[in-house]
Amino acid sequence: MCPHALIPFKPAGPKSRLSGILSQEEREAFARAMLEDVIAAAKDANCSPVIVATELFDSEDVQVTIADKDLSGALNEVLSQAAGPVLILMADLPLATGPAIRRVVTTTSDIGIVPGRGGGTNAIFVREPAKFHVDYYGMSFLKHTKIAQEAGLSCEVIDSFLLHTDIDEEEDLVEILTHGTGASRKYLEGLGFVLAAENGRVGVKRQTSAASPRT
Amino acid sequence: MCPHALIPFKPAGPKSRLSGILSQEEREAFARAMLEDVIAAAKDANCSPVIVATELFDSEDVQVTIADKDLSGALNEVLSQAAGPVLILMADLPLATGPAIRRVVTTTSDIGIVPGRGGGTNAIFVREPAKFHVDYYGMSFLKHTKIAQEAGLSCEVIDSFLLHTDIDEEEDLVEILTHGTGASRKYLEGLGFVLAAENGRVGVKRQTSAASPRT
Repeated sequence: MCPHALIPFKPAGPKSRLSGILSQEEREAFARAMLEDVIAAAKDANCSPVIVATELFDSEDVQVTIADKDLSGALNEVLSQAAGPVLILMADLPLATGPAIRRVVTTTSDIGIVPGRGGGTNAIFVREPAKFHVDYYGMSFLKHTKIAQEAGLSCEVIDSFLLHTDIDEEEDLVEILTHGTGASRKYLEGLGFVLAAENGRVGVKRQTSAASPRT
Repeated sequence: MCPHALIPFKPAGPKSRLSGILSQEEREAFARAMLEDVIAAAKDANCSPVIVATELFDSEDVQVTIADKDLSGALNEVLSQAAGPVLILMADLPLATGPAIRRVVTTTSDIGIVPGRGGGTNAIFVREPAKFHVDYYGMSFLKHTKIAQEAGLSCEVIDSFLLHTDIDEEEDLVEILTHGTGASRKYLEGLGFVLAAENGRVGVKRQTSAASPRT
């Protein structure tokens, strides 16, 4: 089995909640590094990555660009035309690994889903795309399990923290510096980020001795 | 295999970071509900729960009380006397399930570990307790993998978000109201907590129409 892995991606102005610690240029490069990690993991799981982006950008991977910015509408259009099983993977999952993705795409259920933190959906495998549609934003995990149920589709929740860990806030960078092995970790370390324990909690700090390409 | 599952527990004044939304009495009852969920999951995985508490409290489960408050020291004393494999499980893992815990205790490695969010250790299975010691607080996940490495013990990281999800902050309650099925969810719902989407993010709110036993 070699399903397409649709990876929605926003090249310009991503990850605004990290603007307190990363410049816009850095956030764009960091988002590209996370995308690189997700693509590598998808390929390791024998999936064919297809980037669903709001604009064309420099990449050797297959891209589909969407004119409007409605993520769900764009993905549903792709789903409606898909000939075989499809995996949808978020682009901000830098801990993703081949084995974790394989657990999703080898589900014996009609739908395999990995929730994101805070009620979202980080990965969803759809065996028969014509029978399903996505509805992102807000509590999408509960929406997706309900859509599956109403369509009579069986649904397995895959218990993976590597795919559950999406990166939005500064504190999320702790996960990359603790568990990451790919381009995202390398990028953050190159900027001088290290783990720092304060008052019993673990956070990150940016060492000023490192090269600081902030703009 | 039927390893003991050591579950450290603090009956009095737990979960202070939830004091903005739960009274002390509620936090103690909520901590007990989470403990109940963890115990049920451990039993479902054929483990024998042993509560390692700072004081005796009303419970039918086996308890070990510790005089001082040093978690690592107390656990290491138990480990040094253990006759067989031991699992150490945190008490604030309300999403824990039997299958998730079984993945930990059936590891073929010497050590099976599930990281917590923010660099901690939520579950650790130790096949030969005499060869290992724990060191909680701070970046305990990295400390534990290093201790294993230095002792020549193989170590598997078990990829589970159900065991990765520990409850400390208000936003963590979203996970219980989204994925929980046990006593913790029931307790929160009894207090009137529901999911609430605001500005595209999912949080929780406490409905005032519900009975409010705040003190």
